[in-house]
Amino acid sequence: MLKHPAKKRFSSQVKTSQDQSYEKRKWAFLSLFVVLAAMTIFSAAVKAEVDFKREGLETFFLKNGMQVVVIPDRRAPVVTHMVWYKVGAADEDPGQSGNAHFLEHLMFKGTKNLKPGEFSKIVAQNGGQENAFTSQDYTGYYQRVASDRLPLMMKMEADRMRNLVLSEEIVRPELEVIKEERRSRTDNSPSGRLGEQLNAVFYLAHPYGTPVIGWPADIAALNRDTAIEFYKRYYAPNNAILIVAGDIDAKTLKPLAEKYYGVIPAAPEIGERRRMAEPKPQTQRRATLKDPRVASPSMRRFYLAPSYSTAKPGEAEALDVLAQIIGGGATSRLHRSLVLDKKIAAGAGAWYDSSNLDNGKIAVYGSSLPGQKIEDVEAAIDEVINEVLANGVTQEEVERAKNTMIAQAIYAQDSQTHLARIFGVALTTGQKVEDVIEWPQRIEKATLEQVNQVARKYLNSDVAATGILLKAKTAEKAS
Amino acid sequence: MLKHPAKKRFSSQVKTSQDQSYEKRKWAFLSLFVVLAAMTIFSAAVKAEVDFKREGLETFFLKNGMQVVVIPDRRAPVVTHMVWYKVGAADEDPGQSGNAHFLEHLMFKGTKNLKPGEFSKIVAQNGGQENAFTSQDYTGYYQRVASDRLPLMMKMEADRMRNLVLSEEIVRPELEVIKEERRSRTDNSPSGRLGEQLNAVFYLAHPYGTPVIGWPADIAALNRDTAIEFYKRYYAPNNAILIVAGDIDAKTLKPLAEKYYGVIPAAPEIGERRRMAEPKPQTQRRATLKDPRVASPSMRRFYLAPSYSTAKPGEAEALDVLAQIIGGGATSRLHRSLVLDKKIAAGAGAWYDSSNLDNGKIAVYGSSLPGQKIEDVEAAIDEVINEVLANGVTQEEVERAKNTMIAQAIYAQDSQTHLARIFGVALTTGQKVEDVIEWPQRIEKATLEQVNQVARKYLNSDVAATGILLKAKTAEKAS
Repeated sequence: MLKHPAKKRFSSQVKTSQDQSYEKRKWAFLSLFVVLAAMTIFSAAVKAEVDFKREGLETFFLKNGMQVVVIPDRRAPVVTHMVWYKVGAADEDPGQSGNAHFLEHLMFKGTKNLKPGEFSKIVAQNGGQENAFTSQDYTGYYQRVASDRLPLMMKMEADRMRNLVLSEEIVRPELEVIKEERRSRTDNSPSGRLGEQLNAVFYLAHPYGTPVIGWPADIAALNRDTAIEFYKRYYAPNNAILIVAGDIDAKTLKPLAEKYYGVIPAAPEIGERRRMAEPKPQTQRRATLKDPRVASPSMRRFYLAPSYSTAKPGEAEALDVLAQIIGGGATSRLHRSLVLDKKIAAGAGAWYDSSNLDNGKIAVYGSSLPGQKIEDVEAAIDEVINEVLANGVTQEEVERAKNTMIAQAIYAQDSQTHLARIFGVALTTGQKVEDVIEWPQRIEKATLEQVNQVARKYLNSDVAATGILLKAKTAEKAS
Repeated sequence: MLKHPAKKRFSSQVKTSQDQSYEKRKWAFLSLFVVLAAMTIFSAAVKAEVDFKREGLETFFLKNGMQVVVIPDRRAPVVTHMVWYKVGAADEDPGQSGNAHFLEHLMFKGTKNLKPGEFSKIVAQNGGQENAFTSQDYTGYYQRVASDRLPLMMKMEADRMRNLVLSEEIVRPELEVIKEERRSRTDNSPSGRLGEQLNAVFYLAHPYGTPVIGWPADIAALNRDTAIEFYKRYYAPNNAILIVAGDIDAKTLKPLAEKYYGVIPAAPEIGERRRMAEPKPQTQRRATLKDPRVASPSMRRFYLAPSYSTAKPGEAEALDVLAQIIGGGATSRLHRSLVLDKKIAAGAGAWYDSSNLDNGKIAVYGSSLPGQKIEDVEAAIDEVINEVLANGVTQEEVERAKNTMIAQAIYAQDSQTHLARIFGVALTTGQKVEDVIEWPQRIEKATLEQVNQVARKYLNSDVAATGILLKAKTAEKAS
């Protein structure tokens, strides 16, 4: 029996403020892998050499409005069962930051039919793995189990969509768990603290600037009522997506989905997802954090950019290719210049934070090697960016970036969970199943001109936000 | 007849994002003058040499919960009639920034009894002056008229507290007026744009980081419904304060207040004023704006500090004295060092933004002389701050600062309107009449040790936010 199942979930998956950048980065790569894995399936016509095709991917809606996606994967008799809610931290009421993530924890605390912790116990007893995650835009729950356990998982997941029971005795200690998580993962981590504050400096108005785990004062004010209100408002089949990947097809899934989820009544009114619009950035911003615990100074910089959901046609794809060229892996411009040629950085790269309901961003980062100055790392990064802006990337780089993305996809197609996840992320952030399916074809169409155009349009350092992490000389300077 | 009475009001008084710092500064000085003007009245016992005493200052409540303050001033047969609402921009719903100020405009657009514009016309016909203002914490309306016109003003002000009529035809054009104001005062002003963005960078979560005039996207979404909802929720006698200064006393005012305002029913529930708490700042932040229209580069820096409403006993008073020593006028350390000795700055100073319901701040600023670098101005400011932190201010400086404040008060006591306004600001930001009255005695008690203590506690540049305004070399760089 796990003592802190919620903690385990949190640490493995949830995007907290502190790892918003790091986790996002990992996730960006993951997405890339996985989107491509999924996509090449459907782009066989485009890339004949990708000898892989999966049939039977299907989506349909239950009468209560719940979307269902089935992704057959017959390699093993297992399934990944996911329920995604189209609600995340950015949908929280003001002053209640952390509420979405708090509720995610509480979803393991029992229903009318299951005692606190029993959900996880049953999953484990059936040899399954489970997890949950909260982001700015979505909240998701999943289990990976033997196919014949799917009905049991669906029954339990449907049960807690409707029958959650929260008593004061259960809620209060869980809030302490959350506070401790915040302390250990953000407040005691220099990088976490910088990440959280840089985000708040980067987003001037949009709630993406608020940490998923919540500001300390907001967390302290969360309670049973805030969680229940959020649950009642947002946890309903017409605000949820069921994704099942694995040893199953639509014909088998449909009656099960109707049996377990179809009987849950739709919520009368979820409402449009409206967040504060991010105003046009006008200033070059910097946030510097000094802490004696910093081992290696580092910098990260965010450029506001559209996401796949908000971009004009072609722009997001061009941004994806651009990020790959500038900072995706060992052949990227940043890695070659800072790590290989100049030998001043321990690491340097870039990623495109693309899968959001609202704004996205291009991020670049670098960390200095011992004896090197972070100012020089930043100057070298500026040099790389300025070179791209002045002379553009090359046709060869564009082709290589696309080929790399496709090649990675072939190797990345093994993860059933990630395959399911990429659909979940897309569908909860304003995209459609077809958008996911057509993605590689759209990437394939990105031109050199488009890539250079989005570089000039969005890589404007005069309105970017830069975070600097420095080692403080004395302990006095810290915190 | 005024063509744009709202514009006139706005430009003279409302704190827009763009002049939030400049206006705040002016206001800080004003407050100082005026608080002291008011205060020395009551501190005659403390400072016997201040030969001024006003009798008859009184406060009472109407049965519907409306507070009334009367400030007799018999020098001329005029009165200043003010109604203050305990609601401002920081109380707006998310995504509706600008709504408080928008409603302030619309309050001149007619009631069941008065046609649009008629209010202002009647004030003018009666030889009066009027104004209105919106801040983060309050919204106020006032007229200055001959004493015998007071009942008419009260009748009209009470009328629009309850009977505002807003038609689509009236609301829509006024929104265009607001948009134009934003364009001309913020978007076309480099200093305004920097001020707005620096505020947003300084406040990581608190709504003080949102401009009073509103973000462009929010303004565009304001409409009749948002204004009416705000009006119905917040404009009620139990959320308002009547302040009358001038040729009147409580005995005369009371029956008038009961007749005009006492008949308005209290709103059932206004609720507590709860804003998002500002998290502890952890990073040194900078926001730099380059614009070809910048004539003289400048810098301003904000240090988070408590306000009079949130400070521990004695801290706000010590901060007031500290700001005076560091940057209040020509004898201050900043002016002496940067303007007189080093001759690098056109101006330099500091102010304490003290009259807020929530956080306050200490601000320092400087602008470079032609041929001088803003970096050198900032370095010189750092030098002054660091000297205060290292060696403290002196007993002589503390005494001089207090004496200056008292001396200014004697000269500042002439303004009836400002006298009334200082009570309005205090009472809408969590203070009481007695707090205002006892202020000079508390300032008098501020010790050298306290002043140096708050300096060390709050002047921490590692977690301050600095705004830099630079002249862009090419027009291309702008906007």
